[in-house]
Amino acid sequence: MTYCLGMLLNAGLVMIADTRTNAGVDNFSSYRKLHRLADRRDRQIFLASSGNLSMSQSVIGLLEEGLPPAEGSDQPRTLDAAPSMFRVAQLIGEAVQIASHTVGEALAEINLNGSLALLLGGRMGDSKPRLFLIYSAGNFIECQPETPFFQIGETKYGRPILDRAITLDTPLDEAVKIGFLSFDSAMRSNLAVARPLDLMVMPKDPKAPVLTRRIERDDPYFNNLSESWSQYLRDATKAIPPPPFLS
Amino acid sequence: MTYCLGMLLNAGLVMIADTRTNAGVDNFSSYRKLHRLADRRDRQIFLASSGNLSMSQSVIGLLEEGLPPAEGSDQPRTLDAAPSMFRVAQLIGEAVQIASHTVGEALAEINLNGSLALLLGGRMGDSKPRLFLIYSAGNFIECQPETPFFQIGETKYGRPILDRAITLDTPLDEAVKIGFLSFDSAMRSNLAVARPLDLMVMPKDPKAPVLTRRIERDDPYFNNLSESWSQYLRDATKAIPPPPFLS
Repeated sequence: MTYCLGMLLNAGLVMIADTRTNAGVDNFSSYRKLHRLADRRDRQIFLASSGNLSMSQSVIGLLEEGLPPAEGSDQPRTLDAAPSMFRVAQLIGEAVQIASHTVGEALAEINLNGSLALLLGGRMGDSKPRLFLIYSAGNFIECQPETPFFQIGETKYGRPILDRAITLDTPLDEAVKIGFLSFDSAMRSNLAVARPLDLMVMPKDPKAPVLTRRIERDDPYFNNLSESWSQYLRDATKAIPPPPFLS
Repeated sequence: MTYCLGMLLNAGLVMIADTRTNAGVDNFSSYRKLHRLADRRDRQIFLASSGNLSMSQSVIGLLEEGLPPAEGSDQPRTLDAAPSMFRVAQLIGEAVQIASHTVGEALAEINLNGSLALLLGGRMGDSKPRLFLIYSAGNFIECQPETPFFQIGETKYGRPILDRAITLDTPLDEAVKIGFLSFDSAMRSNLAVARPLDLMVMPKDPKAPVLTRRIERDDPYFNNLSESWSQYLRDATKAIPPPPFLS
């Protein structure tokens, strides 16, 4: 399991991913799920992956090597040449389809689930950040203002806080904090989501630097956030009056 | 979908169930999921059901009519004659197996999911309340002090608050309040869980009356709890300092 979250706000784009992978409950490992596919002045592209690890690594490998050339060309197609984030999403979707037809079908033959889901976030040059959710079939949807976040992997435990607290106008630092609270809930209830977490913050202003950071298992800010949150929840629970029909 | 919760605490037993059923997203109805199977001085038995509605209604019908007589008897076996909660769980498990072999197999033939899960709670005479989780195969487990609650149906959204706040020593009114918060989270994130809710509170003291109550869509206590909780969460989110690497 895995949990990845992308939030596309007026203030910019935030992506967070955990690093836990597991094959059964007796085989846990730590792998990076938040990948930097391009980081140049004209394109900044990040991809978070959940699902079968060999599938997502195949997709990333295919993207790095380049997809088969278009008809009449001998140049492999890479993200470097894609003119828009939409075109990037299409190329990644195509890589997912190739991986599904090779790795995915081999897995299906032995009844293993080769499905995956990807969050693609980034920007071209000075244009606004965009966020896409790419499915196992290579199809994708784009994040819209009505629900300014996408989740993949173990999504449910961490969803209530997002539903309550994330709006299009949430500032970036607040969004990171709420995102961490969402991960804290997921990690408490599911052993298959765990620190370290990888964070990427891309402010709306194209001149502002993109922040990437790893939140380690002993990160003091995260520890403090987790403890404070538990305490606030306990206090809030106490502050709500008991049901009148029971007192 | 459905969400049912049972909490077995030192202070007694609490069961809560929603009433929403749906076949697809275009066919929602309201059905009672928390059933009173016996309410006499010598036995108080409650059953909450999630999963296929025709399956759970078949199980309850079978229990009311009585299971096929034991060898050498002509009396149908009913819950009235069961000497212990364990025996009640076995009888219900047997009813689940009968329903699985008739209704369940017919559903499987047309690729419909006939699985169900049941929470059985209650007491015999003056003995302590007990709580069981009964699965589709008719097998069951009993609630233990280490994790003093069971959930069935749409369990994940409402789980984090339980993991943080419910312990064996939680008083009954507090447990009901936390249970309602758990339902509030589930209802916000999944349209297939909805009020009215049915509540049952069985205090440890066998002389104290069992409380049953329906929480309607416009219940003022629940509305107030839901709004206060949102406000407390927003305040708590604000009170936690922003990440130091972003300020």
